[in-house]
Amino acid sequence: MTDSVLMAEMTWPEFEARVAAGAPVFLPVGATEQHGPHLPLGVDVFLPSHVAASVAAEVGGIVAPCIPYGYKSQPRSGGGQAFPGTTSLSAHTLSLVIKDVVHDLGLHGARRFVILNGHFENAWPAVEGLDLGIRELRRDGIDGVTALRLEYWDFVKRETLDRLFPDGFPGTDLEHASLLETSLMLAIRPDLVRMDRIPNDGPADFPTYDRTPVWPDRVPPSGVLARAQGSTAEKGQWLLDDHVPLIAAAVRAEFGL
Amino acid sequence: MTDSVLMAEMTWPEFEARVAAGAPVFLPVGATEQHGPHLPLGVDVFLPSHVAASVAAEVGGIVAPCIPYGYKSQPRSGGGQAFPGTTSLSAHTLSLVIKDVVHDLGLHGARRFVILNGHFENAWPAVEGLDLGIRELRRDGIDGVTALRLEYWDFVKRETLDRLFPDGFPGTDLEHASLLETSLMLAIRPDLVRMDRIPNDGPADFPTYDRTPVWPDRVPPSGVLARAQGSTAEKGQWLLDDHVPLIAAAVRAEFGL
Amino acid sequence: MTDSVLMAEMTWPEFEARVAAGAPVFLPVGATEQHGPHLPLGVDVFLPSHVAASVAAEVGGIVAPCIPYGYKSQPRSGGGQAFPGTTSLSAHTLSLVIKDVVHDLGLHGARRFVILNGHFENAWPAVEGLDLGIRELRRDGIDGVTALRLEYWDFVKRETLDRLFPDGFPGTDLEHASLLETSLMLAIRPDLVRMDRIPNDGPADFPTYDRTPVWPDRVPPSGVLARAQGSTAEKGQWLLDDHVPLIAAAVRAEFGL
Amino acid sequence: MTDSVLMAEMTWPEFEARVAAGAPVFLPVGATEQHGPHLPLGVDVFLPSHVAASVAAEVGGIVAPCIPYGYKSQPRSGGGQAFPGTTSLSAHTLSLVIKDVVHDLGLHGARRFVILNGHFENAWPAVEGLDLGIRELRRDGIDGVTALRLEYWDFVKRETLDRLFPDGFPGTDLEHASLLETSLMLAIRPDLVRMDRIPNDGPADFPTYDRTPVWPDRVPPSGVLARAQGSTAEKGQWLLDDHVPLIAAAVRAEFGL
Amino acid sequence: MTDSVLMAEMTWPEFEARVAAGAPVFLPVGATEQHGPHLPLGVDVFLPSHVAASVAAEVGGIVAPCIPYGYKSQPRSGGGQAFPGTTSLSAHTLSLVIKDVVHDLGLHGARRFVILNGHFENAWPAVEGLDLGIRELRRDGIDGVTALRLEYWDFVKRETLDRLFPDGFPGTDLEHASLLETSLMLAIRPDLVRMDRIPNDGPADFPTYDRTPVWPDRVPPSGVLARAQGSTAEKGQWLLDDHVPLIAAAVRAEFGL
Amino acid sequence: MTDSVLMAEMTWPEFEARVAAGAPVFLPVGATEQHGPHLPLGVDVFLPSHVAASVAAEVGGIVAPCIPYGYKSQPRSGGGQAFPGTTSLSAHTLSLVIKDVVHDLGLHGARRFVILNGHFENAWPAVEGLDLGIRELRRDGIDGVTALRLEYWDFVKRETLDRLFPDGFPGTDLEHASLLETSLMLAIRPDLVRMDRIPNDGPADFPTYDRTPVWPDRVPPSGVLARAQGSTAEKGQWLLDDHVPLIAAAVRAEFGL
Repeated sequence: MTDSVLMAEMTWPEFEARVAAGAPVFLPVGATEQHGPHLPLGVDVFLPSHVAASVAAEVGGIVAPCIPYGYKSQPRSGGGQAFPGTTSLSAHTLSLVIKDVVHDLGLHGARRFVILNGHFENAWPAVEGLDLGIRELRRDGIDGVTALRLEYWDFVKRETLDRLFPDGFPGTDLEHASLLETSLMLAIRPDLVRMDRIPNDGPADFPTYDRTPVWPDRVPPSGVLARAQGSTAEKGQWLLDDHVPLIAAAVRAEFGL
Repeated sequence: MTDSVLMAEMTWPEFEARVAAGAPVFLPVGATEQHGPHLPLGVDVFLPSHVAASVAAEVGGIVAPCIPYGYKSQPRSGGGQAFPGTTSLSAHTLSLVIKDVVHDLGLHGARRFVILNGHFENAWPAVEGLDLGIRELRRDGIDGVTALRLEYWDFVKRETLDRLFPDGFPGTDLEHASLLETSLMLAIRPDLVRMDRIPNDGPADFPTYDRTPVWPDRVPPSGVLARAQGSTAEKGQWLLDDHVPLIAAAVRAEFGL
Repeated sequence: MTDSVLMAEMTWPEFEARVAAGAPVFLPVGATEQHGPHLPLGVDVFLPSHVAASVAAEVGGIVAPCIPYGYKSQPRSGGGQAFPGTTSLSAHTLSLVIKDVVHDLGLHGARRFVILNGHFENAWPAVEGLDLGIRELRRDGIDGVTALRLEYWDFVKRETLDRLFPDGFPGTDLEHASLLETSLMLAIRPDLVRMDRIPNDGPADFPTYDRTPVWPDRVPPSGVLARAQGSTAEKGQWLLDDHVPLIAAAVRAEFGL
Repeated sequence: MTDSVLMAEMTWPEFEARVAAGAPVFLPVGATEQHGPHLPLGVDVFLPSHVAASVAAEVGGIVAPCIPYGYKSQPRSGGGQAFPGTTSLSAHTLSLVIKDVVHDLGLHGARRFVILNGHFENAWPAVEGLDLGIRELRRDGIDGVTALRLEYWDFVKRETLDRLFPDGFPGTDLEHASLLETSLMLAIRPDLVRMDRIPNDGPADFPTYDRTPVWPDRVPPSGVLARAQGSTAEKGQWLLDDHVPLIAAAVRAEFGL
Repeated sequence: MTDSVLMAEMTWPEFEARVAAGAPVFLPVGATEQHGPHLPLGVDVFLPSHVAASVAAEVGGIVAPCIPYGYKSQPRSGGGQAFPGTTSLSAHTLSLVIKDVVHDLGLHGARRFVILNGHFENAWPAVEGLDLGIRELRRDGIDGVTALRLEYWDFVKRETLDRLFPDGFPGTDLEHASLLETSLMLAIRPDLVRMDRIPNDGPADFPTYDRTPVWPDRVPPSGVLARAQGSTAEKGQWLLDDHVPLIAAAVRAEFGL
Repeated sequence: MTDSVLMAEMTWPEFEARVAAGAPVFLPVGATEQHGPHLPLGVDVFLPSHVAASVAAEVGGIVAPCIPYGYKSQPRSGGGQAFPGTTSLSAHTLSLVIKDVVHDLGLHGARRFVILNGHFENAWPAVEGLDLGIRELRRDGIDGVTALRLEYWDFVKRETLDRLFPDGFPGTDLEHASLLETSLMLAIRPDLVRMDRIPNDGPADFPTYDRTPVWPDRVPPSGVLARAQGSTAEKGQWLLDDHVPLIAAAVRAEFGL
């Protein structure tokens, strides 16, 4: 038990001791969202939870329970809310959840936070929730909080992307249920990947703006925005071999660990 | 993959097919809360998630991701917010989360809900969140929703309680981190139970009212409100052997399954 | 005028003087809710207001105006929202009302509060409202608040219940518009009780869970969940003879009066 | 019982029958606010409740429980929030209360509303709450609501004001705890008026704007903004003899009663 | 650039320097609302912006950007929400906007505020927003804020009104899109006034209460509540010659400028 | 008057006629935010207002008043909230403003919306506000709304960026108060640009994550994140020559104009 980085698996005295010793607390923020016919709805929970646990193990951190529902899926980055199973929070709700969690963790002594996002659309509600939580802590007399907020996929080397996309990286937005996420899932939960169902109806081709209602024909019917073909567990491991140490390095640098 | 009852492990077409076939959707509502020095902070997530998955397996249901943060712990039922690690949502936030989740699931075709609560203090915010979600669905033209809302521990036979508590059942409120929860954890996650740390500072003795700030000496320092001594995996199994079939029977009866 | 315990009947200098002298402020929280064909919609206002005034008279307290609208009636404890006249607040609204009132009273010097609940479903929104009010006072620099929060019906001796229910007490939930409330109303407002209209369609028989929409046949059409037959003013007086001194004793003990 | 116009004193079948017959529902909106050293904190509850009951008796209406906490007292019209005992709701809270009450009454069949305001500062939160309630009813499919919203003191004849103020009417704003309210209280609750404490520190002299913090010397220390000298029960009756029939006439005209 | 009183035209170092020197910050609060067939929808933005800039020029103030959407138009003072183009905020939204703006300006050092209202219905949401902003600043440790809140039209001499309305001033409420506003617009934006379209369907004749839905025949179809005939730029200038110096005098007096 | 595209300059009958004829309504969403020592705080209002008006003129559209306060400035894209003058709304407030405006415009007949964003951080609150507004319109029975949501700077040709940045485009985030915005301001409001104050303390060098509190040394003290040197009105015109026709083309295509 005491070896776990998961807050859910710690007793309260264990948690108290680690926080008192300066352990950074990672808060993964996920989503329940369609990821094509070959990946499960929980991809955006599995991946940031895995990355957070791996980083926390390296830096002596604690992983708070992942928030499993995220902000509304957008057509241009996640296919949109119309896909069955995509179950989301309003921006205000998600921000309040993050505010409340950050606030209570702060009251319990946590002073180092890492909000680790695993769902593109969560970024801004997470910015707001974190800001509200820190403001409220300040009003409760708690000042010395330092918090990082990041998307795990931003921690990747240029050469890794080049290796993965010899023809050019299509960009983070379109990488929904595509090569990156599929490879990562193959690396950490291969039992949940159905390679035989990878669709071939992409890539999506979006203009540079949003439209409501979404265009009837721009989102591939599968929900896969780019291409998942060619995904392998090995490629997923390449990514993890960037994500985990690069995030760990940032955490160490910022918190002087 | 297709055998899983976990929504997080289903693809969206799988989810769509099951919901279209009338599968009830279980939403476990948990908490991150102190459970004494011998149980982990995630007890109120592990237990309702396990019960929900077991019932869902029996009735052909789907288990949506457990909400891992619950309403503020109360001294008389959970020791209170002061224990390190007890990380909670305000009532409004929790109700909004449940509202949003119920609403989106309803938009995706779910018509049968089971809100399965695993944390005493969640009951009323769950009542409200469910009511708000159903009202909003109605305003969006979706009418035929039926929802059950329950605490899993209420599904127990009198004789089981008598067997567990030959000297009399102290009541649900005080059963925090005590015999019932400890036995259940021994049954499903024995690796997370530290029998050697079971404290002996209870049981709590509360008057019939709340006080803020909490009395300095009424909450046992360990956070265990009654007694955990005598907990065994076998007793936990007795409880599961009530909880799962009794809830399944209610679900079948209400939904005509 | 100066003898009244009712805040509404005091001038502001009188209120100021009493609060400065440490008078506890009672805030009754009521409801406007069906209470069968023999009791009026205001039962949950009349009863806690009466109890609060009686206790306040004993302990030198002040009774703030009763909040006359409460949280949504639940089928299993109040018949539900469908009965004409049951007029309720959402949980968030009720919590905000209590927060605002507690906050302002605190700004005016009140440091001892008794939230005295007269409607089962109010309990949790009152917990939350009180917590929010005290948090906000703390942010405004006001720290020394002590608050009790109680349901008046919990202050009853075992022997009184035994005397009232020789065949066994059916439990607080079902005691809606039944023997206890009817007897209490006979004791304090007999003009509002129509003994000839006491129905005979109960008692309700609920399972251990909620259902939305409510079962078509489990709530007695009268709205009386248990039985009101046998109610007398004398029995109501037995209850008051428990409620008032027992609450007064708790208030004195907690506030050192 | 059946003769009462007070919703709190009706059973639900009585309420149902009256509403079904088209009875207008009066919702008095009050306040708990300083009214000088000679009047109690509940003036703004007593007066609109009395007027509402009187009008309802004339037109066959129902009086819902008065909301006893109102919007924040303003220095220029009520002395401001600094007077002990002035206990207020934020605008949002008050609007939500009115929204919820109107909404539930509408669900129960009420189609004719009279929001009868007794506290100057409530006017706009009442406008908003009523608008929100009616919008929400419309979204729930209930369309035929008609609602009046009024301040009772606007229903007065010019000649009555001339009789009361031979030297000229100072205006509604300043008439706080002054001649009008004192006379009305003398007419309906003389036991709560302390004529010997009428102060002599007014009238207030305000510029045409608000200032925060309030000017240290513009609000009379007593909280009486104009003058209460000369108040009599007879004058209060003059006012009631305008208020009640004039409001009743408006209600009859608008609702075709 | 440096001569402008408009915050939007200042660089941040310029703004910082002026605020540090004690410059009062004017926040005009406007509306987008029908103003008859002869005046544009932006009247309630143009007028308070102009007045604020003129006063700021006199007193060394800064004009923050005008909030261009105001509270819901009321039939008795603005014709109501049904007129095409009347685009409004809910009271809560408007109060939050003012709260946020006041709060951030306070964090940046502003200590002297003038909330300058240009739309009748904004008054109370502005009161609330300002109160919330100042409370929040106090919780953030910022105490020395002084704020004025005013309607510009209240700064007019009796003799000017007499000159403008030889037959008697109909009152501020009805002066919607009528002589005052039309004359003011002729003085500052004559290009936006279509004198040939001034209607003749007023004046409105309202009772002393609100009604929802609005009476079908009391609001003149043009939306002009009183009369606009006889408006001239000269009369507008008379008004400006009152508004600007009188407000400037109040600002100077209150802030010791 | 009738030629103006500005809603603020239209009368309500003019607005009504244009909306009835299918005119798209542009809602610019701006900010009041530091833009270095050489640009004014209103850049994010001036630019989207100008672009919106230009596009509206081309496509027969209407420009609603620009929302002049935006979401909180982020250090990595706008320097952050600490710069004097940066005056922002919380995400919830901004979303509510957009919701209310979209809702009311929809009630008045607008069916084609273009939310035209001029401040990077506004993107997500605008997504949410638009979604909430459209949902609410749907609940009010209004279904046929089509809305575009865009950042104006995304409408630029690759070759234009290549021409502007021969050494490579640093990316939109860093282009705060830098070459693009400075050139655009030189093109439309040269009077507000102080070329002699362009600082030389950039470009900023940010890691791929946020930090609270912001790093003490990563944000250039001037607030200019990249470089503004070399800005010219001509370059601004190049940009406008992309922005306006490209957005107009998208609007025409989507709305079939």
